[in-house]
Amino acid sequence: MAGSGFGNIFRITTWGESHGTGIGVVVDGCPAGLELAPEDIQVYLDRRKPGQSKYTTPRSEEDRVEILSGVFDGKTTGTPISMIVYNKTQRSSDYSQIAEYYRPGHADYTFDEKYGFRDYRGGGRSSGRETIGRVAAGAIACKLLNELGITVEAYAKSIGDVEIDYSVFDIKERDNNPVAMPDKNAAKMAELLLQEKMEEKDSVGGVVECVVKNMKTGVGEPVFDKLDACLGKAIMSIGAVKGFEIGSGFNATRLKGSENNDSFYAKGKEVLKMTNNAGGILGGISDGSDIVLRAAFKPTPSIFKEQETVNKNMENIKVQIKGRHDPIIVPRAVVVVEAMTAVTILDLLLLSMTSTLSGIKKFFK
Amino acid sequence: MAGSGFGNIFRITTWGESHGTGIGVVVDGCPAGLELAPEDIQVYLDRRKPGQSKYTTPRSEEDRVEILSGVFDGKTTGTPISMIVYNKTQRSSDYSQIAEYYRPGHADYTFDEKYGFRDYRGGGRSSGRETIGRVAAGAIACKLLNELGITVEAYAKSIGDVEIDYSVFDIKERDNNPVAMPDKNAAKMAELLLQEKMEEKDSVGGVVECVVKNMKTGVGEPVFDKLDACLGKAIMSIGAVKGFEIGSGFNATRLKGSENNDSFYAKGKEVLKMTNNAGGILGGISDGSDIVLRAAFKPTPSIFKEQETVNKNMENIKVQIKGRHDPIIVPRAVVVVEAMTAVTILDLLLLSMTSTLSGIKKFFK
Amino acid sequence: MAGSGFGNIFRITTWGESHGTGIGVVVDGCPAGLELAPEDIQVYLDRRKPGQSKYTTPRSEEDRVEILSGVFDGKTTGTPISMIVYNKTQRSSDYSQIAEYYRPGHADYTFDEKYGFRDYRGGGRSSGRETIGRVAAGAIACKLLNELGITVEAYAKSIGDVEIDYSVFDIKERDNNPVAMPDKNAAKMAELLLQEKMEEKDSVGGVVECVVKNMKTGVGEPVFDKLDACLGKAIMSIGAVKGFEIGSGFNATRLKGSENNDSFYAKGKEVLKMTNNAGGILGGISDGSDIVLRAAFKPTPSIFKEQETVNKNMENIKVQIKGRHDPIIVPRAVVVVEAMTAVTILDLLLLSMTSTLSGIKKFFK
Amino acid sequence: MAGSGFGNIFRITTWGESHGTGIGVVVDGCPAGLELAPEDIQVYLDRRKPGQSKYTTPRSEEDRVEILSGVFDGKTTGTPISMIVYNKTQRSSDYSQIAEYYRPGHADYTFDEKYGFRDYRGGGRSSGRETIGRVAAGAIACKLLNELGITVEAYAKSIGDVEIDYSVFDIKERDNNPVAMPDKNAAKMAELLLQEKMEEKDSVGGVVECVVKNMKTGVGEPVFDKLDACLGKAIMSIGAVKGFEIGSGFNATRLKGSENNDSFYAKGKEVLKMTNNAGGILGGISDGSDIVLRAAFKPTPSIFKEQETVNKNMENIKVQIKGRHDPIIVPRAVVVVEAMTAVTILDLLLLSMTSTLSGIKKFFK
Repeated sequence: MAGSGFGNIFRITTWGESHGTGIGVVVDGCPAGLELAPEDIQVYLDRRKPGQSKYTTPRSEEDRVEILSGVFDGKTTGTPISMIVYNKTQRSSDYSQIAEYYRPGHADYTFDEKYGFRDYRGGGRSSGRETIGRVAAGAIACKLLNELGITVEAYAKSIGDVEIDYSVFDIKERDNNPVAMPDKNAAKMAELLLQEKMEEKDSVGGVVECVVKNMKTGVGEPVFDKLDACLGKAIMSIGAVKGFEIGSGFNATRLKGSENNDSFYAKGKEVLKMTNNAGGILGGISDGSDIVLRAAFKPTPSIFKEQETVNKNMENIKVQIKGRHDPIIVPRAVVVVEAMTAVTILDLLLLSMTSTLSGIKKFFK
Repeated sequence: MAGSGFGNIFRITTWGESHGTGIGVVVDGCPAGLELAPEDIQVYLDRRKPGQSKYTTPRSEEDRVEILSGVFDGKTTGTPISMIVYNKTQRSSDYSQIAEYYRPGHADYTFDEKYGFRDYRGGGRSSGRETIGRVAAGAIACKLLNELGITVEAYAKSIGDVEIDYSVFDIKERDNNPVAMPDKNAAKMAELLLQEKMEEKDSVGGVVECVVKNMKTGVGEPVFDKLDACLGKAIMSIGAVKGFEIGSGFNATRLKGSENNDSFYAKGKEVLKMTNNAGGILGGISDGSDIVLRAAFKPTPSIFKEQETVNKNMENIKVQIKGRHDPIIVPRAVVVVEAMTAVTILDLLLLSMTSTLSGIKKFFK
Repeated sequence: MAGSGFGNIFRITTWGESHGTGIGVVVDGCPAGLELAPEDIQVYLDRRKPGQSKYTTPRSEEDRVEILSGVFDGKTTGTPISMIVYNKTQRSSDYSQIAEYYRPGHADYTFDEKYGFRDYRGGGRSSGRETIGRVAAGAIACKLLNELGITVEAYAKSIGDVEIDYSVFDIKERDNNPVAMPDKNAAKMAELLLQEKMEEKDSVGGVVECVVKNMKTGVGEPVFDKLDACLGKAIMSIGAVKGFEIGSGFNATRLKGSENNDSFYAKGKEVLKMTNNAGGILGGISDGSDIVLRAAFKPTPSIFKEQETVNKNMENIKVQIKGRHDPIIVPRAVVVVEAMTAVTILDLLLLSMTSTLSGIKKFFK
Repeated sequence: MAGSGFGNIFRITTWGESHGTGIGVVVDGCPAGLELAPEDIQVYLDRRKPGQSKYTTPRSEEDRVEILSGVFDGKTTGTPISMIVYNKTQRSSDYSQIAEYYRPGHADYTFDEKYGFRDYRGGGRSSGRETIGRVAAGAIACKLLNELGITVEAYAKSIGDVEIDYSVFDIKERDNNPVAMPDKNAAKMAELLLQEKMEEKDSVGGVVECVVKNMKTGVGEPVFDKLDACLGKAIMSIGAVKGFEIGSGFNATRLKGSENNDSFYAKGKEVLKMTNNAGGILGGISDGSDIVLRAAFKPTPSIFKEQETVNKNMENIKVQIKGRHDPIIVPRAVVVVEAMTAVTILDLLLLSMTSTLSGIKKFFK
């Protein structure tokens, strides 16, 4: 089935494989009148591109985005915005070997089972490069949300067992270290951990946290398109994510109701909450507090260490995966989490405009 | 927006409020020829109905299901199956008080923000009774999956800090204790915990785990309708769920790649995995292993303990919520997790039939 | 597949068979705050109910609607509105005979081919009673559109070769004659034609025209969800419709461009058109003129005259269909066309609120 | 809203404007294993490209398609197929004039109303060039249908008042004349009519008919996704289409039931129909006969003749539209009708695979 589309009003459709001509996305339903230039997209893409540090693949890709449609006189026209990033590195010869066996932790086996064969070059469609389309679309969603005062920011919350310390939280620090942590000390410890794992020819996982500030209330459509349900799908659809949480998340299961409930209080004409265990969502609808979500990323499945697996002749073999791979997915995934969060929030925000007759009447007056 | 529908081919649309005429669901797209009687549904509904133990609300509801359409001569006809459960208890007088303020941890405030007002009787649409429609639909999905040999079973994995011990795991035990745990001793400890919390006028959370056995390979539609993404949405859409995991889940973030990767091995003509950290899903597609997922339920937000909140006049007040409430959501939610899992699995399984030209040709031959 | 749902934001899901328990619809996504009572629905249903004249089946059905959810304190709550009409006449014994063969012009054969068997009682799901759900939902859509000043009205434009004369057009007259024609003389001639056909044990077709007044501009989503495309689907989905037109329709194929183009002119600050061959839609988007559409209804396929067909034993047989059938579908279909038009217009109107950034900013300010 | 997508399982998303970088389409959900090369697409695109005769715009466009993804080793992989056709002619200077006023019969006014401004170069998104994406996708759908033995062919049935004569019908002749008529004499008369209209600086409309042969039974999803309803939407979404018919269409409104009903008869184990007024569809489901549909195309709105309209300053003005325009849309639209028909048929055919439990069981055995 058509599984490469996401969203209702603001709908994105991505395409492309790791070693094909390029990677792209069509953003359909973007409201007209938003100023948009390639640089608005590029700044987001640059945050996920390879070769930024010694912890990311040295694959040499510029990842320059081109806008092919939907923008005229510097503004979105309301028609589909098609964007493309050409693949520079397409040496498929590298990959003749992995065509023969199933890499553990990868989608090689399941793609073969589902489709009968697969584009084995660099993981094909299941490569991390697929997220380029998400990030390009997310950049537009972020820009649109910014116009309404809403911001979306993600960062590494933990890498392996190294966690950030919220008492020294500094979002600016995130962009100063190669592990995207908003805490200088934690970042250093995480780097040490990564070096250790690289020496062990192994890899490590981590948690990305994302915060949406200045959120409108009333966003989310119960009972199945609740804001947290849609965010859950958005985040779980990112490769290598094995878990998703909102607010107090799994920790809520160990709390008492009196601890986990957020008390309301009035401040002038505003209703506020003393705490935010809800993560900004009650009953699937935004309450105006910060949206706080977390994504659990597994360790990079491509490791240099020897592993056991099966080849096409159904022989049990041992393999050592060659090539370029990051010892950690998290730092480059931070912007992907932002992107998927922004796309989801924007789509549901637009949908929420039709919730009341009085709102509709005011709009058409 | 229309948010009360879920699924593509096998699509469910639920309706109804806690204290309206009833709760119902329309199951559209159910294949024709499935034998179906009300008892097939009732057995699932009985697992979530109130009054089953001292840990659940004594609200007296029989929750008898009626099938209104879509079945003829004892079989599904392929047309929409409409089902209804009438509400017996509709004493809205009970609820005049909570109309005046926002209950902490509930959707009262966000419904008012979104819709301008709300049906405050028993939580209206955001009541746990809304899940009746899900369970009724899930019963049909389970029956259909069973015809293909696939089973879906959930249970309480933890309640507060009481966890089951897998070495004594016994799924039959689940139905012998009031906390739906497949471990007799853990169940007893959980009961003690619940009694303690009830005395404290408080509540507690927990984790539901769900396992799908005999799963087909090739189910899930990358990159946005991946099996885990769709399951994530399905589970996160259940009220009170704050987190979702597949396989090793959040724990994967603290593992090394060499630990988290599942090695493949060949057994005859089958490709199997030595471990199942993937939870049965690689690259968003089922790999034939058991699907293993977990849902984090927060503690019941309705507690008897005094809480702080705001009333309609924007005054800060203290409230004690009266009425009937369970000290724990988990035991009655187990069947809801099963239902949403089954609905999701079935829908994507049907979609997967169109993945290859050779499969299509064989079908139409 | 799930084919019983229609619409995106304002989405309807219908269910029910001719001789099952009842017929119903769930309206999901209806904005909150609309005053709604069963009488608002009933007045529309009464226009399609049987037994209104000698040209309609004498089947005795009151067709009383019940609202089961989604309304509180007399207003829509924004949650799904479930409605049901119980079937009174369920004598399935009448239908034992037609279970054995395929009625010409009916869906008996195709239902058997698709689903393996069928609910043969009164046509089951493919009965005209299925439209009850459409009309109930359409009544809500009409009421909501009326709140914005928009009206939707249909009528019989022709019956057989009897056409209305626009020079004496009077919409009030539509409700004074049994053929729903807004022209007294044409109605009389149509009645004569119907009597003739009834004596011949035959039936006749006709054209329903529908006009939407005070339409907003900017409604419709190119290139696939154009307003005319969505209306086309809505109308073609009504049983017995074989054709659909907008504005000059098929006649446009015989006009010159200079004849068919509508000249624009300015009147104060308004842009108007001198003619309306476009039927109110240019490039798939409403231009503010009246929407004018037409639906071609085939003659009732159930006729008393002897016909040739095939029975279950693959024998060529001759049949005379017994029972109650209207010699014409058009008069009772008029309100169905209104309903589907209103549902479509409303859904796209709500979607159009998100077309521009400036509109969104104004809304959220 | 996102209106540039069509289909459920086999889903196409088009993008691009007349004078932007290019026009493209993403085909998502195409089954894996179909042999596909650019030439398979090109042969369809060549049938709609400009400059083929003196009755089409001399705009010099090669319209070469490139496949950017979704094909590996010469076969579709099951992942999205992205295709692009670059625009060669992008002289936007030509269009400075039409930026200032609203062309009658065009979408200039409605795009401004909806989006606040428009890409006025060559009609932008509402240009006929938009159909390139449809045709490219349709070529794939046709190839896939061919694999199942199903063919889709369209032709001009009438141009102005010149109709083809079915007694000399010859589909091969269609490609021998510039008006796409399967009747040599009618084609000559149509050419004379076109020359006359070109001299009058005017244009003319016509009807395209499309026939699907060797259709499977059981395709179409009542009650809203009926085969004819989906085809109606598909065809009505093509620019300049003002009407749609299935089988006897509008003519059915003037027939008696006994004339319009198609009698069934048995031939061996097959159920056949003596006539095909149904156009191959009963109750919204294919009956195995040929699908026969018609699309009414209005005359080209761009004419050289002087017309009245309004400019941006709200002045009533007279205009003569310069540039290149075809005096008739029909000949180049024939392949567009084929494309949209094929995309719709294929999507519903794939969906129909899930209609019965027995079919599903057989598939997964």
